[in-house]
Amino acid sequence: MNSYPEKTQALKGLMNAQSLESIFYPKSIAVIGASRRSEAVGHAVFKNLINGGYEGVLYPVNPKALSIHGVRCYKSVSEIPDPVDLAILIVHAEHCLETFRECLKKGVKAAVIISAGFKEVGGEGIQIEKKITQLARKHGVPILGPNCLGLINTDPRVRMNASFGRAMPKEGRIAFISQSGALCTSVLDYAKGANIGFSKFISMGNKADITELQLLEYLANDEQTDVILMYLENLSHPREMLALARSITGDAKVCKPILAIKAGRTAQGARAASSHTGALAGSDDIYNALFEQGGILRVETVQELFDYAQAFSQRKLPKGSRVAIITNAGGPGIMTTDACVRYGLEMAEISDAAKKELRKHLPATASFNNPVDVIGDAQHQRYQAALEIVLKEKTVDAAIVILTPQAMTDIEEIAEVVGRIASQSDKPVLACFMGIVDVSGGVKVLEERWKMPAYRFPESAARTLAVMAQYGEWMRRPRTGVRNFSVDQDRARKILRRAVREKRKALYDYETREVLEAYGFPLLPMKLAPDSEAAAKAAEEIGCPVVVKISSPQILHKIDAGGVALSVKTAADVRAAADEMLKRIAKTHPEANLLGVTVQKMAPKGREVILGLNKDPLFGPTLMFGLGGTYVEVMKDVTFRVAPIRQLSARHMIRAIKSFKILEGVRGEKPADLEKIAECLERLSQLAVENPEIAELDINPLFVYDKGEGCSVIDARILIDLSGADKSAEAAEFRD
Amino acid sequence: MNSYPEKTQALKGLMNAQSLESIFYPKSIAVIGASRRSEAVGHAVFKNLINGGYEGVLYPVNPKALSIHGVRCYKSVSEIPDPVDLAILIVHAEHCLETFRECLKKGVKAAVIISAGFKEVGGEGIQIEKKITQLARKHGVPILGPNCLGLINTDPRVRMNASFGRAMPKEGRIAFISQSGALCTSVLDYAKGANIGFSKFISMGNKADITELQLLEYLANDEQTDVILMYLENLSHPREMLALARSITGDAKVCKPILAIKAGRTAQGARAASSHTGALAGSDDIYNALFEQGGILRVETVQELFDYAQAFSQRKLPKGSRVAIITNAGGPGIMTTDACVRYGLEMAEISDAAKKELRKHLPATASFNNPVDVIGDAQHQRYQAALEIVLKEKTVDAAIVILTPQAMTDIEEIAEVVGRIASQSDKPVLACFMGIVDVSGGVKVLEERWKMPAYRFPESAARTLAVMAQYGEWMRRPRTGVRNFSVDQDRARKILRRAVREKRKALYDYETREVLEAYGFPLLPMKLAPDSEAAAKAAEEIGCPVVVKISSPQILHKIDAGGVALSVKTAADVRAAADEMLKRIAKTHPEANLLGVTVQKMAPKGREVILGLNKDPLFGPTLMFGLGGTYVEVMKDVTFRVAPIRQLSARHMIRAIKSFKILEGVRGEKPADLEKIAECLERLSQLAVENPEIAELDINPLFVYDKGEGCSVIDARILIDLSGADKSAEAAEFRD
Repeated sequence: MNSYPEKTQALKGLMNAQSLESIFYPKSIAVIGASRRSEAVGHAVFKNLINGGYEGVLYPVNPKALSIHGVRCYKSVSEIPDPVDLAILIVHAEHCLETFRECLKKGVKAAVIISAGFKEVGGEGIQIEKKITQLARKHGVPILGPNCLGLINTDPRVRMNASFGRAMPKEGRIAFISQSGALCTSVLDYAKGANIGFSKFISMGNKADITELQLLEYLANDEQTDVILMYLENLSHPREMLALARSITGDAKVCKPILAIKAGRTAQGARAASSHTGALAGSDDIYNALFEQGGILRVETVQELFDYAQAFSQRKLPKGSRVAIITNAGGPGIMTTDACVRYGLEMAEISDAAKKELRKHLPATASFNNPVDVIGDAQHQRYQAALEIVLKEKTVDAAIVILTPQAMTDIEEIAEVVGRIASQSDKPVLACFMGIVDVSGGVKVLEERWKMPAYRFPESAARTLAVMAQYGEWMRRPRTGVRNFSVDQDRARKILRRAVREKRKALYDYETREVLEAYGFPLLPMKLAPDSEAAAKAAEEIGCPVVVKISSPQILHKIDAGGVALSVKTAADVRAAADEMLKRIAKTHPEANLLGVTVQKMAPKGREVILGLNKDPLFGPTLMFGLGGTYVEVMKDVTFRVAPIRQLSARHMIRAIKSFKILEGVRGEKPADLEKIAECLERLSQLAVENPEIAELDINPLFVYDKGEGCSVIDARILIDLSGADKSAEAAEFRD
Repeated sequence: MNSYPEKTQALKGLMNAQSLESIFYPKSIAVIGASRRSEAVGHAVFKNLINGGYEGVLYPVNPKALSIHGVRCYKSVSEIPDPVDLAILIVHAEHCLETFRECLKKGVKAAVIISAGFKEVGGEGIQIEKKITQLARKHGVPILGPNCLGLINTDPRVRMNASFGRAMPKEGRIAFISQSGALCTSVLDYAKGANIGFSKFISMGNKADITELQLLEYLANDEQTDVILMYLENLSHPREMLALARSITGDAKVCKPILAIKAGRTAQGARAASSHTGALAGSDDIYNALFEQGGILRVETVQELFDYAQAFSQRKLPKGSRVAIITNAGGPGIMTTDACVRYGLEMAEISDAAKKELRKHLPATASFNNPVDVIGDAQHQRYQAALEIVLKEKTVDAAIVILTPQAMTDIEEIAEVVGRIASQSDKPVLACFMGIVDVSGGVKVLEERWKMPAYRFPESAARTLAVMAQYGEWMRRPRTGVRNFSVDQDRARKILRRAVREKRKALYDYETREVLEAYGFPLLPMKLAPDSEAAAKAAEEIGCPVVVKISSPQILHKIDAGGVALSVKTAADVRAAADEMLKRIAKTHPEANLLGVTVQKMAPKGREVILGLNKDPLFGPTLMFGLGGTYVEVMKDVTFRVAPIRQLSARHMIRAIKSFKILEGVRGEKPADLEKIAECLERLSQLAVENPEIAELDINPLFVYDKGEGCSVIDARILIDLSGADKSAEAAEFRD
């Protein structure tokens, strides 16, 4: 058994993140295109650097100005007498290449290209961007952008606002990476209003050179950063991203949550995405799979992004999903309970001992169950007692404190005790002070003094806690590897390569069977018979009842073509069926090359599932699992994963379908052989990774029997990728 | 065909809403329990009335004070020299009855009991509350409360803040009704922070007398109110509510949207609800059905409540679900598109003519498709042109305007043009100014000058527009009635009453069949045979193949008891099967009274659906529909309605299941006979309403054939309600 070599693989052929040091911590910066005109972007960037309190040396470059903002100006970068770490380019796209060449000559270590007019506008822009990128890679000088807002590093050691945003955010433990520059301006404004700080703030623009991958790797090692937020429209290196994300989110030593908005979720959204950045958007289902496999928490909205990030900044994860709610109002207690349960949390049981303790501090009309209702006239003493008592409970993994601003509520004092007690506990506590104006003093105490997230609405607190619990579960999950089964790879390869050579889009039935056999899938006894006589003989050898199917590479949907006879009970019937079938289909499908019929042992009826493999142009081989029939076709109840899959992933894939209960057994049925399905998925994964010639593979159906009784491939087909050997080679290399 | 007489029925036996005039517009108020102590509730209420600028005369009543807040105090209500319209009671629960008696003697026209200590604390409190309510009803004096925050009427004609909330909200067109007093304090604070006004603001407390029903009826006629918001934990009169809500939400003349949070959605939430108010919570599915039938928009969170209410205050509904998005940022445009599609809106197509027009006003790099991207450096001129052009498009039903605060964005000017153009169009326009601080000036212009809702996050705007579209669709729906089929009611009644007399919990099979036959359900030829000989004879008459089933009122699950033989092909086989079955079951079920076997024509296989009827203690007869087998049992893919159902509702019930595609036909199947299923549901509805003796009825399965070919009841059972005739009488009356 080999575990998948993720870390080294992820970075193979990619830039070393160390080189980003000059992007984030430059000792000197040349602002090329700095301007005196207050409405110019080059003015805004330079002013932001100056006003932000940059700790290094700034060199404005502008051939037409003597000074900018009181700082001596240079006609060109080469004129600067000192070494320049970072060049920021705010010049017309058509001059960028030339300017960048000059920067290289000057020996800059990194560049940020803020200017627009490149890939996103098409035409000439695409070419310039390509040339600059090639040059950058050749010289090992990383470039951020072009077409971006710039970047911000609030670390007091550098204090760099190299962006044209409206203001410098405050220092914080959250890093933000965005593929949309405009969104950055909004995010900065939200952050200002919601009192949220950032460690690093990066607008990636067109991602000509630096992508989310290098940034993630850098931020993984950044001591200022505890949580990483991303807004993405596409992934530049999805498979490498998966491996890298796993090592960031799942490693107990690093353990930095990654929260991502992936826009372009719907078909319409994806269309908008591609018209916007020319990005090749992959299927949303596969993005989901990839995020799940990488431990990336996918969120829908900017609001969620902030809600979660603030909670994760506390660096406390719940050890389970059992929540206690403390409230001074019944109605909001119910709403919070509803929300907790809706988002998958459990309501913790309060022990009798704790209830007895609560009775000492709360009035008789209080509720001592969960939610603990300290009643409308509660002041901070009751909140203090209740929170201390429930946090001591072994059955409580986390708490939500709800406050409504009632007549006697001493809001700031309550904030003070809640903040203090929460800070002393290793269980996460989220506060929801319901209101805006009257509660603002309390919210300020929580956020500023106790660095504790306070939510406006109970649903936000509940949803946030649920995501924290989900991440906690990810951290605690058993670590499994990718299993490597002993298979006959050569046999499969030979068949697949022959098909490629013969430029066939599909394997013949018996070839498909051989490939699956080589990879250890459970198959039923079967023979290919060229004519009806041979079919009858085959039936005798295998033993009736059998299934007779037409065999032709041109006929993929055999049932639709009338090419399947089920449950044929005697050899004579087999002869008749094969005869009729061959004659009829010869007429109805004159174009089809009929190889004969296959005669296969009739399998006992099991529960039908489908296993699929699809080679995605962006993601490489992806796997699909679902229940057969209408569950897949009508309910779309399927799960996806990017291959290769680990042992645990294979099991998660099965459990994640909505109709999973059917596999567990309903109406007194025994559970199905889940282990065997999982093994089939793992074998399929190995087959996919080792044989890039496969474009598509469907096992439909796989009959699954009761636990311990295995499963049988009933039908399968394999389509071949004839699009070229280069990609295949790449995928093969990826696996090795 | 009779249409259901909703309006008159809803109010039968309930208080006339006119009498609430003294609650909302009293000319004089006695505040009994007004207090000088600043921390007392009686102080807060009096102070709020004074400071709120009440237009009538206030009389503080307190035996121990000379004056309160400078106003002359009275020792008792009877001492007040002038007539008193409204009494507000803030006295200990044990004195409330006596005080209320005094009020009645004084001739007050209405009362608000703010005091707590009644039903919600149990014991003696329940009795006092009951007595007060009886007294109030006897004298026709409506009571709000007890155990409530009070009420607020911002109408300048009265300007009454009769609550102990922290502040008076500003005037607005939104009414809010809450079953949680504490939530009111938060809602007032949210409203203050979000600049939202109210027409009426009512805390219902324990709903001893006045419930949401009378309040809704009052607000339906209230000229100050355009939108009604509710926070509910239970419904006091669900069936009457349904009828009333329909007349408020669905009548083009009234057309006031009702938005409701129904807390206690989850089992755990419901438990919290019942420990909180002693309310009997009904099943959440039925609440959903009832809200849907009544046109009430069910929302999950307070945030949604506000988001939607502000938009509905504009009183413009989209004529369809096609939305145009205008944005100055690509990323947020994609996010908005994602959200629109997720919430069920469609992206409008922009015509070539409009694109041509757009090109005149926007730079070449703009996007002329939907979302229309006016590009980051856009100022108000571009927004103006783009919004004017898209709103003129016939394919556009509504627009969302997205703004990110970029360097050159003239936010307030943009707000001004967007507000103006939107006000001139009959299509709704929602603005999303993404940010908090920088955008606040623009938000103010939109909200205060143009009374236009502005959202922080694109998802809020999209979700709001989707709900508006949903409500528009409700307004435009075809109006259908409850069909009254010509049935043999007497025949069914006779059977059901006999079962009641004999105290049987279930009908015999042949009785069930007769009842269904009397109501015109499609049945298969069947005979009851007391022994195997008779069974064989019956089979000959009916024609094989047949199904043989055990017949015994004690055996409800025939398959589990081995009491079903399917597809029996000859009369001889029928004889053998019946013989074996009767002998075996006599042994395995010695307690069962075996009436023999039924012999039924074997139906051709159709698509299996389930029709159910359940008499709910709170909601009365409710109907269920779903696909058979695992779809119901595992996927819980069912829909509910409260009977009686209209023609349209029956069809919606069928279309609303997730697996509806299966009935439309998959893999080249023809669509199923949906009309016939709908008719069966309507017949079931009539059966339910006309026969309150039925506790439960399952038709499982109903085989449905292709369109035009009808359906067949394959199996059914009817359980009898033996809990008492009074309820039955009530339900029967309700229908007549």
